[in-house]
Amino acid sequence: MTDRAPVDGDGGTPAAPILVVGSVALDEISTPAGHREGVVGGTAVNFSAAASLFAPVQLVGVIGDDYPTDELDFLLRRGADLSGLERRPGRSFRWGGFYRRDMNTRDTTFTELGVFADFHPTIPDAFRSAPWAFLGAIDPTLQLEVLDQIESPVLAACDTMNYWIEGTPERLADVIARIDLITLNDEEAKQLSGEYNLARAARWIRSRGPRHVVIKKGEHGAVLLTGDGFFLTPGFPLENVVDPTGAGDAFAGGLLGHLARCGSITGPALRRAVVYGCALGSFACEAFGARRMATLTMAEVEDRVRSFGVLTRFDEGGVTET
Amino acid sequence: MTDRAPVDGDGGTPAAPILVVGSVALDEISTPAGHREGVVGGTAVNFSAAASLFAPVQLVGVIGDDYPTDELDFLLRRGADLSGLERRPGRSFRWGGFYRRDMNTRDTTFTELGVFADFHPTIPDAFRSAPWAFLGAIDPTLQLEVLDQIESPVLAACDTMNYWIEGTPERLADVIARIDLITLNDEEAKQLSGEYNLARAARWIRSRGPRHVVIKKGEHGAVLLTGDGFFLTPGFPLENVVDPTGAGDAFAGGLLGHLARCGSITGPALRRAVVYGCALGSFACEAFGARRMATLTMAEVEDRVRSFGVLTRFDEGGVTET
Repeated sequence: MTDRAPVDGDGGTPAAPILVVGSVALDEISTPAGHREGVVGGTAVNFSAAASLFAPVQLVGVIGDDYPTDELDFLLRRGADLSGLERRPGRSFRWGGFYRRDMNTRDTTFTELGVFADFHPTIPDAFRSAPWAFLGAIDPTLQLEVLDQIESPVLAACDTMNYWIEGTPERLADVIARIDLITLNDEEAKQLSGEYNLARAARWIRSRGPRHVVIKKGEHGAVLLTGDGFFLTPGFPLENVVDPTGAGDAFAGGLLGHLARCGSITGPALRRAVVYGCALGSFACEAFGARRMATLTMAEVEDRVRSFGVLTRFDEGGVTET
Repeated sequence: MTDRAPVDGDGGTPAAPILVVGSVALDEISTPAGHREGVVGGTAVNFSAAASLFAPVQLVGVIGDDYPTDELDFLLRRGADLSGLERRPGRSFRWGGFYRRDMNTRDTTFTELGVFADFHPTIPDAFRSAPWAFLGAIDPTLQLEVLDQIESPVLAACDTMNYWIEGTPERLADVIARIDLITLNDEEAKQLSGEYNLARAARWIRSRGPRHVVIKKGEHGAVLLTGDGFFLTPGFPLENVVDPTGAGDAFAGGLLGHLARCGSITGPALRRAVVYGCALGSFACEAFGARRMATLTMAEVEDRVRSFGVLTRFDEGGVTET
């Protein structure tokens, strides 16, 4: 029995599973709202916390013997399969972050790789045919190892970050050439493309392989570029930001979650998926780590997605157009 | 005879005039796209270049005997009344700006006040009953002088800037308490309110007087807060930004222009007005100074506003909602 929301996409067909490979971390986070240590986080956890509301998640990652796995029980209750979460002797990956008052800039205070240093993802046989796959921002070499182990999903997506853009651009180019959708933030998109203009950066990235480019702009929303052109959404005007850590991964979880739920990658489905991404990203900011995501319901998600419609609608009234 | 577009708001009633008071400048601008000197600019010119497409503009400002007034002929052809543009012996206000590669940060390279130093706006009798008024970002003491000279417009709007927020906060508070709508950029909104969160900043400002708060976010679009709550629009994904100077004033011109044209300040009219603002702001970036605005047609404006609808629409398709 799970407490995942029933699928309402096409008459109750169960949503197909989403494979996620990425870091599983213990975070130490300081924001203007407070300080927390030992916060359950990392890309795979934050992605799954969002995506598991929409579809069953298959998580692949590594933890040390210090990880409080009971804090991931909410994922099991939502039908997630954690059998690909390898536990090894040693310490889990740990990351520390400090946010300034505007919440838009953060400093990494420390990184301890622990058992993550030797991580080579092994995709369990039962996960290899997952129709939806998300490769978190890990070493592109590992991302390629994952792509070699999975069987032509409907959509393979990846994220990346400045460290890999600078450090291993050729391997990253190989990843980008093989995936269907990339998510990355605006600074990363500019750095990857060498373009200072975000629209041109998106076109450059799309010319390198992915049919769908999704640029995350934090509080400013997101940009989608597909074969149909651009789609833009502002960010949700959240008035109490507690902790932005993991919001980008929750965004990706909402994005792939919606696609998996409706079993579609049409232009309209992708547009709505980006709005779901923004909605999940905004919820992620409402508490430290994945705490808000753990209590979140699909009714709340749908309500916020409707809010995006209300917040951005402008066609009605005013001067009539032809 | 003018080449202003016919009013299509309510069956051909002529749009009521918009009074604008602000700087009239000669700019020296360096951007990654080039360097220009003696560019006709300033708030009153850049605002009028946009607003004159929608409604007759009444401009109040001051220039020296060095100003190339023939470069403002396009405003006359659009029905603008420049009889409030005072010419005095001396040099015009001059401003120099340098934009970095990302076009998001600029340095002021010099400011020469010239005849603007002694400017005290005198509103001609024929302008005092203008139903729409925009007070550019000048000394709040001068903005109050204008408010004392005009007769209860339908909407009085103002802009401001960091210099006055820091330098004369009490006088600025007096202005804000008396106007109906304020436009300012996101950094200014945060500085004015002392809030790091933009949504809270907007609420703070609204609590100080203006019924309508419009926060300009440059390439990230704009936020409107009215009694109906928030409206958000992303920025237009312009791929060739030549010169952002004056885009904020063109935004205000499009905003007030649309309101004057449709003679309405309802919530839906304000939302559309913000989109017109973003559209005009994006056109302003396509060439140095007001050059793009001088050749712009209402057909192009309407086309771009329609593009905003296409770029932001996400309701169709996907998972159906109740």
